[in-house]
Amino acid sequence: MPIEFPANDKFHEECGVVAVYGHPEAANLVYLGLYALQHRGQESAGIATSDRGKMYVELGMGLVADIFTSQRIKKLPGNIAIGHNRYSTAGVSQIVNAQPCLINYAKGSMALAHNGNLVNADQIREALVDEGAIFQSSNDSEVIVHLIAHSHQELFVNRVIEALAGVQGAYSLALMTEHEVVVARDPHGFRPLCLGRLDGAYIVASESCVMDLIEAEYLREVEPGEVLLINEDGLQSFFPFHRQETRRCIFEHIYFARPDSLIFGEYTYSVRKRMGKALANQSPVEADIVVPVPDSGNLSALGYSEESGIPFEMALIRNHYVGRTFIEPQSPIRHFGVKVKLNAVKKLISGKRVIIIDDSIVRGTTSRKIVKMVRDAGAKEVHVRISSPPTLFPCFYGIDTPNRDELIASRHTLEETRNFITADSLEYLHLENMLNMMGEDSGKFCSACFDGQYPVDIDGRGHQPVQLQLFGSETPDV
Amino acid sequence: MPIEFPANDKFHEECGVVAVYGHPEAANLVYLGLYALQHRGQESAGIATSDRGKMYVELGMGLVADIFTSQRIKKLPGNIAIGHNRYSTAGVSQIVNAQPCLINYAKGSMALAHNGNLVNADQIREALVDEGAIFQSSNDSEVIVHLIAHSHQELFVNRVIEALAGVQGAYSLALMTEHEVVVARDPHGFRPLCLGRLDGAYIVASESCVMDLIEAEYLREVEPGEVLLINEDGLQSFFPFHRQETRRCIFEHIYFARPDSLIFGEYTYSVRKRMGKALANQSPVEADIVVPVPDSGNLSALGYSEESGIPFEMALIRNHYVGRTFIEPQSPIRHFGVKVKLNAVKKLISGKRVIIIDDSIVRGTTSRKIVKMVRDAGAKEVHVRISSPPTLFPCFYGIDTPNRDELIASRHTLEETRNFITADSLEYLHLENMLNMMGEDSGKFCSACFDGQYPVDIDGRGHQPVQLQLFGSETPDV
Amino acid sequence: MPIEFPANDKFHEECGVVAVYGHPEAANLVYLGLYALQHRGQESAGIATSDRGKMYVELGMGLVADIFTSQRIKKLPGNIAIGHNRYSTAGVSQIVNAQPCLINYAKGSMALAHNGNLVNADQIREALVDEGAIFQSSNDSEVIVHLIAHSHQELFVNRVIEALAGVQGAYSLALMTEHEVVVARDPHGFRPLCLGRLDGAYIVASESCVMDLIEAEYLREVEPGEVLLINEDGLQSFFPFHRQETRRCIFEHIYFARPDSLIFGEYTYSVRKRMGKALANQSPVEADIVVPVPDSGNLSALGYSEESGIPFEMALIRNHYVGRTFIEPQSPIRHFGVKVKLNAVKKLISGKRVIIIDDSIVRGTTSRKIVKMVRDAGAKEVHVRISSPPTLFPCFYGIDTPNRDELIASRHTLEETRNFITADSLEYLHLENMLNMMGEDSGKFCSACFDGQYPVDIDGRGHQPVQLQLFGSETPDV
Amino acid sequence: MPIEFPANDKFHEECGVVAVYGHPEAANLVYLGLYALQHRGQESAGIATSDRGKMYVELGMGLVADIFTSQRIKKLPGNIAIGHNRYSTAGVSQIVNAQPCLINYAKGSMALAHNGNLVNADQIREALVDEGAIFQSSNDSEVIVHLIAHSHQELFVNRVIEALAGVQGAYSLALMTEHEVVVARDPHGFRPLCLGRLDGAYIVASESCVMDLIEAEYLREVEPGEVLLINEDGLQSFFPFHRQETRRCIFEHIYFARPDSLIFGEYTYSVRKRMGKALANQSPVEADIVVPVPDSGNLSALGYSEESGIPFEMALIRNHYVGRTFIEPQSPIRHFGVKVKLNAVKKLISGKRVIIIDDSIVRGTTSRKIVKMVRDAGAKEVHVRISSPPTLFPCFYGIDTPNRDELIASRHTLEETRNFITADSLEYLHLENMLNMMGEDSGKFCSACFDGQYPVDIDGRGHQPVQLQLFGSETPDV
Repeated sequence: MPIEFPANDKFHEECGVVAVYGHPEAANLVYLGLYALQHRGQESAGIATSDRGKMYVELGMGLVADIFTSQRIKKLPGNIAIGHNRYSTAGVSQIVNAQPCLINYAKGSMALAHNGNLVNADQIREALVDEGAIFQSSNDSEVIVHLIAHSHQELFVNRVIEALAGVQGAYSLALMTEHEVVVARDPHGFRPLCLGRLDGAYIVASESCVMDLIEAEYLREVEPGEVLLINEDGLQSFFPFHRQETRRCIFEHIYFARPDSLIFGEYTYSVRKRMGKALANQSPVEADIVVPVPDSGNLSALGYSEESGIPFEMALIRNHYVGRTFIEPQSPIRHFGVKVKLNAVKKLISGKRVIIIDDSIVRGTTSRKIVKMVRDAGAKEVHVRISSPPTLFPCFYGIDTPNRDELIASRHTLEETRNFITADSLEYLHLENMLNMMGEDSGKFCSACFDGQYPVDIDGRGHQPVQLQLFGSETPDV
Repeated sequence: MPIEFPANDKFHEECGVVAVYGHPEAANLVYLGLYALQHRGQESAGIATSDRGKMYVELGMGLVADIFTSQRIKKLPGNIAIGHNRYSTAGVSQIVNAQPCLINYAKGSMALAHNGNLVNADQIREALVDEGAIFQSSNDSEVIVHLIAHSHQELFVNRVIEALAGVQGAYSLALMTEHEVVVARDPHGFRPLCLGRLDGAYIVASESCVMDLIEAEYLREVEPGEVLLINEDGLQSFFPFHRQETRRCIFEHIYFARPDSLIFGEYTYSVRKRMGKALANQSPVEADIVVPVPDSGNLSALGYSEESGIPFEMALIRNHYVGRTFIEPQSPIRHFGVKVKLNAVKKLISGKRVIIIDDSIVRGTTSRKIVKMVRDAGAKEVHVRISSPPTLFPCFYGIDTPNRDELIASRHTLEETRNFITADSLEYLHLENMLNMMGEDSGKFCSACFDGQYPVDIDGRGHQPVQLQLFGSETPDV
Repeated sequence: MPIEFPANDKFHEECGVVAVYGHPEAANLVYLGLYALQHRGQESAGIATSDRGKMYVELGMGLVADIFTSQRIKKLPGNIAIGHNRYSTAGVSQIVNAQPCLINYAKGSMALAHNGNLVNADQIREALVDEGAIFQSSNDSEVIVHLIAHSHQELFVNRVIEALAGVQGAYSLALMTEHEVVVARDPHGFRPLCLGRLDGAYIVASESCVMDLIEAEYLREVEPGEVLLINEDGLQSFFPFHRQETRRCIFEHIYFARPDSLIFGEYTYSVRKRMGKALANQSPVEADIVVPVPDSGNLSALGYSEESGIPFEMALIRNHYVGRTFIEPQSPIRHFGVKVKLNAVKKLISGKRVIIIDDSIVRGTTSRKIVKMVRDAGAKEVHVRISSPPTLFPCFYGIDTPNRDELIASRHTLEETRNFITADSLEYLHLENMLNMMGEDSGKFCSACFDGQYPVDIDGRGHQPVQLQLFGSETPDV
Repeated sequence: MPIEFPANDKFHEECGVVAVYGHPEAANLVYLGLYALQHRGQESAGIATSDRGKMYVELGMGLVADIFTSQRIKKLPGNIAIGHNRYSTAGVSQIVNAQPCLINYAKGSMALAHNGNLVNADQIREALVDEGAIFQSSNDSEVIVHLIAHSHQELFVNRVIEALAGVQGAYSLALMTEHEVVVARDPHGFRPLCLGRLDGAYIVASESCVMDLIEAEYLREVEPGEVLLINEDGLQSFFPFHRQETRRCIFEHIYFARPDSLIFGEYTYSVRKRMGKALANQSPVEADIVVPVPDSGNLSALGYSEESGIPFEMALIRNHYVGRTFIEPQSPIRHFGVKVKLNAVKKLISGKRVIIIDDSIVRGTTSRKIVKMVRDAGAKEVHVRISSPPTLFPCFYGIDTPNRDELIASRHTLEETRNFITADSLEYLHLENMLNMMGEDSGKFCSACFDGQYPVDIDGRGHQPVQLQLFGSETPDV
């Protein structure tokens, strides 16, 4: 019987966004950007462009490289474009949820691509439907476009600002009209967003790896609470919202972002390695080798090894050709699970005391299989070290976490978890150690999934009066 | 170079709809119904179902049998279902236009499938966007769901009625909520819609051939201006709108509907044959054989032959395996056009005076190629007889007609057209003859595409005060 | 549950072949030819070409228009090409059986496309494997290429002749080397094959409809027992085999060939109509309408109607969108069978005495369903008339017939068959009437499937001494 | 314009083979085995099984997980199975070359799956075609099945031995008849092949990672020159050929085999790491970080780092979602090449002296791009170290190498190559150091691609008299 692989036992980011203003090959650049951001969402992807007052959109299910042929790219003329990768949340994998969503409203057309999650989407949605609005998807994005359409501001950028003034939660947004691009990042700055330049065009993307691929110059982060308007007059920056405390998602560094991306002012690669070092200092253990769970544990394992002096061995080997389904025999070999993806190198492990490093544990089932695989390969001891704290609380700002019931750490003690995964020892990086490691920025991260301290009231009461008087008064020096 | 076949040189219906209430295999029955209505639209198809208060939808591009696997049908639980086939209008072949459209609004969820075209959609859309509504497709259907969502009526059926009171044009609609089905046909009755019964369930469909396929009992037409509510209390009928003159689309009989369908009180088969007979009486010509353009001209040719006594020969043979694209050689054989679809049987044609019968001429290019093919096969004379009047005006009620500029008859005299298609003679069935042929119903048809007499003001000024006081006071005896 | 349609309840031709010599767009012309011959085989198709001493082949499963993109056609350079359509015999639908088969042997390369069936293939195969030959498919064609490879003749055409001298049965063959095309038709001439000319190039094809599509001039049939060599010296004709009695397959006229094809000296259309007339004379019955089973019964029904004076009505309507699979509901509507393909027009049938005309009955199950459908539509009487004799014996010359056990006529009396299909009366066209109808050619047809008189000893003892001395001595005047 | 990625700038293995005897889920186990061996060939894959005297085969183009659905696995009954993965050699990617090839010959049926390359295939092929054999593919495998079919030995295993006695070159073969499996490895043992056991069944596979995945017990290597017969009597081992010097392909360790595979008595992982250490000793350089080209350089970089004490950094990041094509913009960003696959982490590299480690250089173009990428990221110095010697000669034993003209090292001095790739220094591991590193086995490897010393005369003169008298006299103790 063919089995679908169990949902990867990892947390999931929900999206990646890209925008280009002012480049004759805008759609192609967005395509490349989405390609570089494929890790942020593999369910669906889309690109919208604007050409001479007309807008175009192409959407599809699957990977960017499969959806977009050169024929489809040709259907996307214009030098303004935005794009979106979406992650597949179980059960609602449908084309109606693909973005960018392109709509017509009183003032014309707009397209929107959104990374993040609104905390008060349900309340707003309720209020909007009370006034007669209709919703065709379960996306937060549809809430935002309704708010923009309802705004009484004249200028599009002001409509966006008025709309965003009413929402709470996480958003890194790219919007497009017939003639301009507007991007915005929520005041807490949960999700990353950066700005670059190529041949006179502006590029906006979730991660800096996009700039590297298209050889754009990386300019800077879009700031928390910043709204950028890019049009024929160039780029204008606004900070129309009450300033909030910065609360970057630490999980971007732990797992989501590409290691070669510069986000929140640091390369993810460096942060991961420091986490490994911090973990080595905090939870040392006598052992013979340090082994990463590839590829999520690679860099923290490297850091752990460097700090502890225990040799680093890539003793778990990935099969690079893992497909989406896989036909398991009826018997007697059952429950392949992680085996089709990973295999242990017996020679390295046999008779050794092994430290396995990963970035997180979700349900514990994968860790349990890995520990068993390592033990079957002859390990004398198996110590598991996790480069982040136990995940105890759900995320409301754009990460797809399982129910608390499914999060092993939220229902079990450390000892119970250790027992479940059958490790000889198990340690997580402590929250304070992780944050301290971030230096002077240590207070600027959201750690709600670890400690339940939600920076935005998850009941969603509004508290962000908009400062429309500021419009246009600031010009950024980029 | 591969060429896409030129848009079939025919007029196009825009949709087929099916609804089922109260059958455990509702989705499967709708699937079968769409299968039987495939001729009404081949661009996209969709099915929505309702199960225990939850709604499901599956949409896809292409043919019903290709879109729906048994796996997809299984994702559509429940004993209420509606479905839709959509025709591909050039250039906007996109998944966002696929129906049924499923939306959430203040009072819950609804799904809608629509056949027809509203005359005042643009005005309503404008008014709605002025109030802040947003539109994600170019479908009239989105206008209707907005109106329903905006209605202040409590009962869903009354919301639908209030919404429809504001629209003008053609609609045969199937709507579904969590617990009921509502169907409606516009007061002029432009598009067909019929009601049937199977195992205690109600079936609604564009044409009666659906009832034949699923072995449902055909009950009756849904009347012009009738609204049906089907729920756990059974079926209720309402006539809430001001009565209008019936204006059935005569093109349903001429070309769109299946010959085995009973619509507007007659089998299309019989009407087509009568048209052929009327044509024979009106425009006789001495000839040796009567040849239909398959399959659109089959039945009128049969009628022409019977009436004239000139033998019927199927001397144009269809290739049953015509695909969507086809690779033409560079040279020296060019312009295959109709040749890959049709071939003439030389033996039958050589040396003969041939009457070619078709149902209509659109641009004239196909007719010209057919006349050439018949002449190349050795015909001594080629007389073309068309079983409907010249199409001079565009349709605003659900048929995709080319621009007037492209309608050969609207820019050319009969003689010029004859000359263009290189026939020895050309005659169309006269409008009065066609209508007379319909007997006592002759006044109940829309003939706007022939005479420009549009039954609904195409400027779209409203004139249908709703009679809400009538609600529930009538119960149909079905 | 999705059901595959039962094997169409018809007999099946096994193949169509096309060859082109001397045209710069050889592959494209072969593609068009296969397109026109799609009715002769839908399982797989292939094209091989020859360019500057190198050969190319592209094969695929499915329909010609789906297999060949312009990209694949571009991979087939050269001005020599042959092509093949193959019918899907149940169970062995595999790419290894697709043709043309392209092989390398002592003298170079050759490609072969074969329509027909050899009677002594098994004996030859046995002899060849005894000498060490290996076989990779179950095709007779592989037997022929082995024989050609084993021949000690120098010239390719002579190798082919020597090979064919040893085989018995039906073959219409197209072969190609780096520099020439050789075509051959067996001495009995079971399968059709014709010759045409386009822009100086020679075209060979199973049916003349290929010439019509590509606008080639139809020259003549390839004669029974004729071998044609086409190379830079032009076309040479040989008759190297002992002359045999001509035994054309009458089923080509009854069912397989396209009505617009000229084969065996007659248009299939005319023959079918004459069969209907003969049937009317032989087995008249008082009735109100004559109804064909579309499309196989169309022309004989037309003939029957003309001869009997009973009106012709196309009262069984085909669904043009029948796909390969179709999802049947679990209950209570079962056994759709023919219903998804055909529907009866009730109005025409109700209360009438109906004559249903088809070309043949295989298992009887389809006829039974059609009779039931017509009766359900209200027919007062249902008379079935079949325009060919009862099929009692299997074909060994290229038609896929069911086992004798499955042929209803071979195990049941006429009365039992009538009873099974629930008709009021049933008559087949008598063999002598059918043959008489062919006029002076009446003795030149194979009627083995009706009378068991197999023109070629089906035990396969050889009896065709080759006349190699004749080589090259005859030049045809084409 | 969409561009196909340039052929990966690596050498390519041609195949992986798997065989199972005596397991009720034989096809499923072979499927899993092919899944684990996917790195050995991605063009096509196939599985053949044997059940009650009948053989089945399913072939397809593409990846194992895409070709084989559970439906296709179900078409492969029986408890004997063999399977094959094939690498795509440019230009001949065709289904006719897919394996296993299944043939019928005088003694019944056989299927064959072959990894390797015969040196005298052309001569044998020539001799065979002179005797009338025909060839349908360009595979060496077809040569072998012909030889087996021509053998006059009675027992299948002896036919195989007689056939192999005539061939020279590299082969790791799995053969199957209706009732047995025969596997063979050439006397030099160029390609790996190992034996395992699961639930009483025997498993044979190219690499031991297959045993790990299906949880079979690894028994031992199939020895160079060994022939195994596995049937209902169990397993028998033969050494029928003259003993030859063992000549394992060192490139299996350098690049082809999975690091978790035990081949030639060692884990590839360990060998690669030792190569890195040897390279560090041989060619040290003062630098700040050691960076692997992922994943081919990972382990040698780790070894280099350990030995040199220079920190290991994974500063080149792979995009895990690289597809087969990719749409490049027209301008001004051109020549993405390696950029879509790799990106440099600037932070790590900027201002550093960087050692880049890879396993080999083929054309030099990829290395050049990587050096440029590292330099653009700010490296102060870029030193390239290659963990194998310069590849100067083509391989005739199963590896797809470019022409000598394309091998940069064969036409350029070390200094010229260094200059071309723009590195500050470039060093290869010297051949003697590499071989020394293999310890007492150092003489047992083929190093022809480095030194041109071909262990088998590449002119293909035979020199392996078969020792048929030995048949059956040896029984291996496994």
